[in-house]
Amino acid sequence: MNDIFFKNYPLLIAGVKADGKPVDIFIDEQGVIGDIGEGVRTQYAAEAEFIIDGDDAVALPGLINTHTHAAMTLLRGYADDMSLQDWLSQKIWPLEAHLTGDDVYWGTRLACLEMIKTGTTAFNDMYFFMEDAARAVDTMGIKAVLCYGFIDLGDPEKREAECRATERLVSHIKSLNNPRIRPAAGPHAPYTVSREGLTWCAEFAAEHTIGIHIHVSETEKEVNDSRAMHNKRPVAVLDECGILTPRTVAAHCCWLDEDECRLFAKRGVHAAHNPSSNMKLATRRAMPYHWLKAAGANVTLGTDGCSSNNNLDMFEEMKAASLLQKFFWNDPTLLPAHEALYMATAAGAKALGFGTGTLSAGAPADIVLVTARTACNVPLHNPTSNLVYSCSGAAVETVLCNGKVLMLEREVPDEQEILAGAQKAAANLVKRAMQT
Amino acid sequence: MNDIFFKNYPLLIAGVKADGKPVDIFIDEQGVIGDIGEGVRTQYAAEAEFIIDGDDAVALPGLINTHTHAAMTLLRGYADDMSLQDWLSQKIWPLEAHLTGDDVYWGTRLACLEMIKTGTTAFNDMYFFMEDAARAVDTMGIKAVLCYGFIDLGDPEKREAECRATERLVSHIKSLNNPRIRPAAGPHAPYTVSREGLTWCAEFAAEHTIGIHIHVSETEKEVNDSRAMHNKRPVAVLDECGILTPRTVAAHCCWLDEDECRLFAKRGVHAAHNPSSNMKLATRRAMPYHWLKAAGANVTLGTDGCSSNNNLDMFEEMKAASLLQKFFWNDPTLLPAHEALYMATAAGAKALGFGTGTLSAGAPADIVLVTARTACNVPLHNPTSNLVYSCSGAAVETVLCNGKVLMLEREVPDEQEILAGAQKAAANLVKRAMQT
Repeated sequence: MNDIFFKNYPLLIAGVKADGKPVDIFIDEQGVIGDIGEGVRTQYAAEAEFIIDGDDAVALPGLINTHTHAAMTLLRGYADDMSLQDWLSQKIWPLEAHLTGDDVYWGTRLACLEMIKTGTTAFNDMYFFMEDAARAVDTMGIKAVLCYGFIDLGDPEKREAECRATERLVSHIKSLNNPRIRPAAGPHAPYTVSREGLTWCAEFAAEHTIGIHIHVSETEKEVNDSRAMHNKRPVAVLDECGILTPRTVAAHCCWLDEDECRLFAKRGVHAAHNPSSNMKLATRRAMPYHWLKAAGANVTLGTDGCSSNNNLDMFEEMKAASLLQKFFWNDPTLLPAHEALYMATAAGAKALGFGTGTLSAGAPADIVLVTARTACNVPLHNPTSNLVYSCSGAAVETVLCNGKVLMLEREVPDEQEILAGAQKAAANLVKRAMQT
Repeated sequence: MNDIFFKNYPLLIAGVKADGKPVDIFIDEQGVIGDIGEGVRTQYAAEAEFIIDGDDAVALPGLINTHTHAAMTLLRGYADDMSLQDWLSQKIWPLEAHLTGDDVYWGTRLACLEMIKTGTTAFNDMYFFMEDAARAVDTMGIKAVLCYGFIDLGDPEKREAECRATERLVSHIKSLNNPRIRPAAGPHAPYTVSREGLTWCAEFAAEHTIGIHIHVSETEKEVNDSRAMHNKRPVAVLDECGILTPRTVAAHCCWLDEDECRLFAKRGVHAAHNPSSNMKLATRRAMPYHWLKAAGANVTLGTDGCSSNNNLDMFEEMKAASLLQKFFWNDPTLLPAHEALYMATAAGAKALGFGTGTLSAGAPADIVLVTARTACNVPLHNPTSNLVYSCSGAAVETVLCNGKVLMLEREVPDEQEILAGAQKAAANLVKRAMQT
């Protein structure tokens, strides 16, 4: 049975439900969905090298986490319940100062394991030692867009170093020649990167036709500070620097005004909602989803890093998004279940450029099966409602990425070794930080 | 191995962590914790009839859900994303009109199964056909306080019928003589029960020394309507009718003012927070936890029913509570993890009168083991943070109630039969409703 993992075979998933209908899914040996429909199993049974018994599970496209800091799994539970400034300056930054590439490798492997176990097949990552993150993603079989968090704080010397670090990462990732792993430019935020730094990132990303990953207007303070410093809101600064493109993912976006939402739509920027993190750190305002939607902007979903969430479960995040939007904007009809699922699949795929985020012939076989034989999925009046409001990622049984099986009946190869390696890396990191 | 379920034996749980320390737990044949501490396994190994290998799991007291409508599991996903009034009048009430006692039996069994699988060992329930709910709870091995939802809408004839229904249920539950199942009076809410009805419930509950379970100030409209009708806020009306007692659990409490929080503390009322439901139905305000805490009131946690949440996972609810409090009241230090865990355990135990909600010698052995061998619990910098912010109920491996094993390594006897029975009941219910 071990043979089925991490390989491309002609594969048949027989007897699942997709969009409420009973279907079978045939996957070709290139890892692409060859056919999907009721009863297609009869056509492909002979051709398929493996048949996965779907057992009436609900099939959906792999979820796509469009904003995280994967290796921060190592900091899970290290510091909570603090004000943002104390949390960063007293706990997170001092620990991060001791991070090594090997830590990032183990933290990212743990993150990928957690994502696979909860049905995520692609993510958008910003952190340090990203060559090691790439090494981790390579072993785990999922898809990622990786960027180095570029922070110059207005210092020209630091800026030079950040430009070189960005160039090195992009060149390294290109050299891997792994279609599952893509580079992006990662200007951290308008308040941590100078106009010169932002402009360099925008031009560099355009030149290499790669994505841009940035934090935008997470807190009101950022907006006020930008107005005091530049006499402009942050989004205007970003636009002047060329950061707002159809290759750009802007995380948080809690404090966008209506004009900024329209500009996002016009420029084709993808806005990544991070509801759990925003609630935990008390941003005081939820992303204005209804304005972005009305403007026609693409809105995606992300968990943020594990020190402010504290997990990578996109099922929990779909629920948090839908509930927070309803609550904050005072409308129980806002962000219904099918829109939350769209955010976490097709909208995310569009943002990261990984396929269509749908289950259809010709799409990469990034497929998640959610068991129907568990309480969260009984009764099955409405599968989409159950996925968004009732089930957590623990209901995911089987995960494929590019047609390769990454998890089967909740088994992921090497799970206990990954957990032990990450546990050890986290313990050593804290030990090193305590010694100084 | 099947022998271990549902029976009282002298039992040893060897090698778990409680409050961050490695301990063993000995449970006597009365289902009471006989001893807990490091290395006590050597003392009790001979006496114990079964030894459960704790495998370094995190042990915690069984979670206590202080506000739900258990049988509404049958309506999970039946109607979402609607305004409260449309949702109730177009979807929920028309379906509930067709409910039978057998439906409530299956819905409550499904609810108990879901609670066991997510680490809840006691709940506070309000619904109809509660004799059938009692029958379900009896078979499942967990603890419940059950009340009939008393609604008279000011109609004296209806009130008489509700009084008789309440009397019948209380008398029936007393006749069961099952210490796990207790009755309560269940005046639905100040806006659905007349002053006469409220007063009758208060006097009846006092006479029988039983609990009172009521919805209080969930929406602003209720508060405004009460002021228009009675020239008083709802809590003042409840106090005049004798409803505010140390045996009273008041659900929601979103719109309490500071004086009302102080009155709750003075009267000993237990306030049950229902954050997911409040967000989903857009109550526009979160329970003022900081005022209740400052006043010294007991604050507990509940999931509400599955048509407005849509699950019964108290781990998710702890996270929702902590995040909503931080976000709404704009303070990331509010409701830290250890207070959320207290709400879901000891505070709930105090409200329902089931033991202490702690792991200590002499307490009933209501014990939950959360695996350490899963991503949500790695690394283990802070077990309480992981329980509240990272893990869902799916990380629960083993559950005991009164010393009886209800789940072992995620196995619950008859799980698939219960799921199938509930699925069938839900499908038939919808079919009957469609035919009229």
